[in-house]
Amino acid sequence: MSFSLKGKVIFFATSNINKFNEARKVFNKYKIAAAMLRVKKLEIQSNNLEEIAKTSVIEAFKKCNLPIIVEDAGLFVETLNDFPGPYAAYVYKTIGNKGLLKLMEQVENRKAKFRSVIAYYDADLEVPLCFKGEVVGEIIKEQRKTKNKYGFGFDPIFKPIDCDKTFAEMSITEKNKYSHRARALRKFAEWYRHQQ
Amino acid sequence: MSFSLKGKVIFFATSNINKFNEARKVFNKYKIAAAMLRVKKLEIQSNNLEEIAKTSVIEAFKKCNLPIIVEDAGLFVETLNDFPGPYAAYVYKTIGNKGLLKLMEQVENRKAKFRSVIAYYDADLEVPLCFKGEVVGEIIKEQRKTKNKYGFGFDPIFKPIDCDKTFAEMSITEKNKYSHRARALRKFAEWYRHQQ
Repeated sequence: MSFSLKGKVIFFATSNINKFNEARKVFNKYKIAAAMLRVKKLEIQSNNLEEIAKTSVIEAFKKCNLPIIVEDAGLFVETLNDFPGPYAAYVYKTIGNKGLLKLMEQVENRKAKFRSVIAYYDADLEVPLCFKGEVVGEIIKEQRKTKNKYGFGFDPIFKPIDCDKTFAEMSITEKNKYSHRARALRKFAEWYRHQQ
Repeated sequence: MSFSLKGKVIFFATSNINKFNEARKVFNKYKIAAAMLRVKKLEIQSNNLEEIAKTSVIEAFKKCNLPIIVEDAGLFVETLNDFPGPYAAYVYKTIGNKGLLKLMEQVENRKAKFRSVIAYYDADLEVPLCFKGEVVGEIIKEQRKTKNKYGFGFDPIFKPIDCDKTFAEMSITEKNKYSHRARALRKFAEWYRHQQ
């Protein structure tokens, strides 16, 4: 297969359309075209997002041989010793927002962080490069989402600090002002657009 | 390095001394000598224990070139949609038995399963072999353990069906009568002792 495209292009290995849509909005501003690539990624078990992302991006690269990014994110709740951490996706799928709220019943300290790591790899690199973003906030007491607005996963129970809305009450553009993922994506885009 | 041993030997890649001690007791009965090997295993994120164990054992084999087993286990709570599943270790480390009991407050259906998969690999095999064990039981309402008895992880809140004791109120020998791990280990040992 051969193909050519004008301008900068980045391939994003993910099967999560929500993540991809957030990324595309960020990349637009940097005039980078983003393409979603559904390659099965190998995600390792680790509480280190960077390690997970680096392993994943190398595996993804082996399958496509294209300049590629993967993203790994986690939710770290202070009083729960960083649960659910990098396993947020499985925890969301099983106990969901309801389960997390139950664990936080009668808990004073609501502090939580979302963290994101973007790992980039291409044929010229020896090791993947990582770009990180984080957002500090709190787990609110009841789910809040706005119909027709955006938000997935734990977004309805997470509110960034100094902000009135949960991630699920924001449009993608609003969420990208605060979010861990958008912060990591911007760092990557800033670097990537200056590459030859 | 060269070495020789009389009789059957198996290498068990784990950093969990409790798991190793349970395995050694089982292997003794089959006259198989077990050696604990602390190689760093790559554990993938998946809700399929077999897939996790197979990937791990190949990685472990690459590091030592010895006939080797790894074990992967999980706790699957029915009413929590199989939470914590294969991530039992991280969930235990963060929210612990206390957190799991909180999630189960006012919950009628207490049914849970422990599952174990042993994956074996050696230089003669094309793909790893898997041996499985499971134990059905329930999540009790309060932790129970007996001083000087055995048990780790979620053992103090899990009671096998038709049994009065939690895993943490049993000796290793008693636990091995019921446990998912011992069941998988016996299947493996039965096969392994007949190998040339």
